[in-house]
Amino acid sequence: MLIVHNAGQILTLAGGSQRGHSLGNLGIVENGAVVIQSGQVLAVGKSDSLLAAYPAAERYDAGGRVVMPGFVDPHTHLVWAGDRADEFSLRQQGKPYMEILAMGGGILSTVRATRAASVAQLVTETRPRALAAFNHGTTTMEVKTGYGLTLESEINQLRAIVALDQEGPLELIPTFMGAHAVPPEYQDQPDEYVDLLCQEMLPGIYAWWQSEAPHLPLPFVDVFCERGAFDLAQSRRILEAARDLGFPLKIHADEFENLGGAALAAALGAVSADHLVKTSPKDIKALANSETVAVSLPGTPFGLNEAEFTPAKALIEADALLALATDINPGTSWCESMQFILALACRKMGLSPQQAIAAATINAAAALKLQNRVGSIEPGKQADLLILNVNDFRHLGYRFGTNLVSHVIKRGKLFPVG
Amino acid sequence: MLIVHNAGQILTLAGGSQRGHSLGNLGIVENGAVVIQSGQVLAVGKSDSLLAAYPAAERYDAGGRVVMPGFVDPHTHLVWAGDRADEFSLRQQGKPYMEILAMGGGILSTVRATRAASVAQLVTETRPRALAAFNHGTTTMEVKTGYGLTLESEINQLRAIVALDQEGPLELIPTFMGAHAVPPEYQDQPDEYVDLLCQEMLPGIYAWWQSEAPHLPLPFVDVFCERGAFDLAQSRRILEAARDLGFPLKIHADEFENLGGAALAAALGAVSADHLVKTSPKDIKALANSETVAVSLPGTPFGLNEAEFTPAKALIEADALLALATDINPGTSWCESMQFILALACRKMGLSPQQAIAAATINAAAALKLQNRVGSIEPGKQADLLILNVNDFRHLGYRFGTNLVSHVIKRGKLFPVG
Ligand SMILES: [Zn+2]
Ligand SMILES: [Zn+2]
Repeated sequence: MLIVHNAGQILTLAGGSQRGHSLGNLGIVENGAVVIQSGQVLAVGKSDSLLAAYPAAERYDAGGRVVMPGFVDPHTHLVWAGDRADEFSLRQQGKPYMEILAMGGGILSTVRATRAASVAQLVTETRPRALAAFNHGTTTMEVKTGYGLTLESEINQLRAIVALDQEGPLELIPTFMGAHAVPPEYQDQPDEYVDLLCQEMLPGIYAWWQSEAPHLPLPFVDVFCERGAFDLAQSRRILEAARDLGFPLKIHADEFENLGGAALAAALGAVSADHLVKTSPKDIKALANSETVAVSLPGTPFGLNEAEFTPAKALIEADALLALATDINPGTSWCESMQFILALACRKMGLSPQQAIAAATINAAAALKLQNRVGSIEPGKQADLLILNVNDFRHLGYRFGTNLVSHVIKRGKLFPVG
Repeated sequence: MLIVHNAGQILTLAGGSQRGHSLGNLGIVENGAVVIQSGQVLAVGKSDSLLAAYPAAERYDAGGRVVMPGFVDPHTHLVWAGDRADEFSLRQQGKPYMEILAMGGGILSTVRATRAASVAQLVTETRPRALAAFNHGTTTMEVKTGYGLTLESEINQLRAIVALDQEGPLELIPTFMGAHAVPPEYQDQPDEYVDLLCQEMLPGIYAWWQSEAPHLPLPFVDVFCERGAFDLAQSRRILEAARDLGFPLKIHADEFENLGGAALAAALGAVSADHLVKTSPKDIKALANSETVAVSLPGTPFGLNEAEFTPAKALIEADALLALATDINPGTSWCESMQFILALACRKMGLSPQQAIAAATINAAAALKLQNRVGSIEPGKQADLLILNVNDFRHLGYRFGTNLVSHVIKRGKLFPVG
């Protein structure tokens, strides 16, 4: 039994996911303590009374600092091989992305490198990113496949995700995203790739999962619904095929153009709709009237130096569920830090630090259907906590470019940072 | 003697400061090594030949990674007491800065807290920021006073700067900035504060320096030339008084409005003119025709969520000397990381990673008149080096929000990071 005591502020985020204007309710306990047993939260309350109630517990003195739930990052592409530093440099010199793509660069270069990598290589290349995310306070992270685009190569990405999750300490939640891009072999026959996805790859993933990981819940299935990727009809076909096999759904929608993906997500009962930059008022309403979580990824427009971000205030006004994620990927947003995403969300989307924190913890957990297990500090929940090196939670958002996490506690185990 | 060998790329930045289109010449040595003796660079070259030439040197294997000069951060306000997290939160909720100022917030709250702090408290509060900057790769940093605004309190800030510099490992270069703001006592008589600055504070700083730190070069003197701070005529008076005492000069110019401060800097032979967001083509030309370094601070418009940044491409086109700095301060840009400033400069000012690196090393050294001692890896220079955790320098700029520094070498001594 461990008691983390003398916390200046405990942000409990108690009470479940936070819709609309209820976003930002941190449930603060001042001079607080958290009692942890068997990897779970046993009690949360005032430091004095919990120290008295659990005199035998091992003690960790938080020194007046902030204690909060670990960040949940509900949208990442963490597993890939190689990098695209050359492409970044070319883009800075003014070369258009379409030219880079025509040279075999862009996502195609990541697909090539990822297909060529063994599972062990994928694990080795991804491990430092997982560790960086963990050291910046992410305790649970969704990870998508989608750089293989063949059944075999996509399964290799899933194997890497499962292996890194087992290795820990960062907990990884897998998503199959064979519909990330049309692979080069199908460039001129995208519908045939959709056929392949629906008729062979999704059933193949399902069969593989049943045989290799029957003890784990099925992964999510995600589709990139965007011009140049999959149109609305193709996205619907893929998601319906996935749903019919029992997969929970996600969708990349409205990053560059509005194709109607957000409303499709709501109609199909998807767990989340992500990006949502070009989302219309009508689609915002559809999301708000659903259980689908709106996941904003401000690192991506920042990475691409675009001016437009998710209309977060309109989503809140409409009573939607808003979450934040990094979208870490090698092309547009190589950023492991949810703290930086909070700093962006405050500036570019007008969130308060309170709102950004709730969107990155309990609501981010809801974007993975995990709000009953992670994302808040409440009795019975997994003991995934951060101890910051500040006494006031508002330093999150206010400060940027560095790391305010002092210690991470994952399933009750304490890890010092740095 | 230490040899850092097996560096995939050594960015030497050899050859002095880089004006106009010469910016971005990294002087790369592949498969390189650096030989260090007595805190200085003794030799730079190919790994094989230097290992053979110095067989007795202690070896550090860089493992194929990038070795580069430590960052020089030539514009900071690192020493202050308290924080303004509450103000950030209020601004996020829509409260205008002028209202916050009227409530006694804004810079006035930092002045109040800094005046109330002892030198020891200032050192204690500033130390974690100095350490964070060092761990993010800054090996030399300019630090301004300017939160005291009385002779005694400004001297306390100088004492804190000198004490932290002596403590190390981060090397600090002091600037007296009594002309940071008109203090509350002089709100209605700004010219009387200018009189005080010219007639008492500058001579007082000069006398204090001669008695307390005669072995060190005089600090810089800096003025905030901006509406609401000091107008052009007041700025000229202060800078001329400082010049007459022998102080080297700096100026904050054109952050929100163009008052002519950049041209004044060039006319007075200031070492640098900083901010330069609203700088006109004519003022750019004046800077380009001078030795005054143009220091851009992109963290500040980012922190304030403003759209406009220093016109870096116009400065380069005009053949000016461009440098980058954090401007770390508690109001607008609490960011210790020069790496994040590079990522901003690439996106918001269109610099290539090469240009941003040169602007943050050899040109940043020139903005402190230190280009003969730091900012490059050349024989005879101080051995201030970084070992990154990547094999390709272009990861700087490309990636954001985390720390790519693996080890910092300061005056020949190796410090692991994290
Ligand atoms: Zn994505
Ligand atoms: Zn400044």
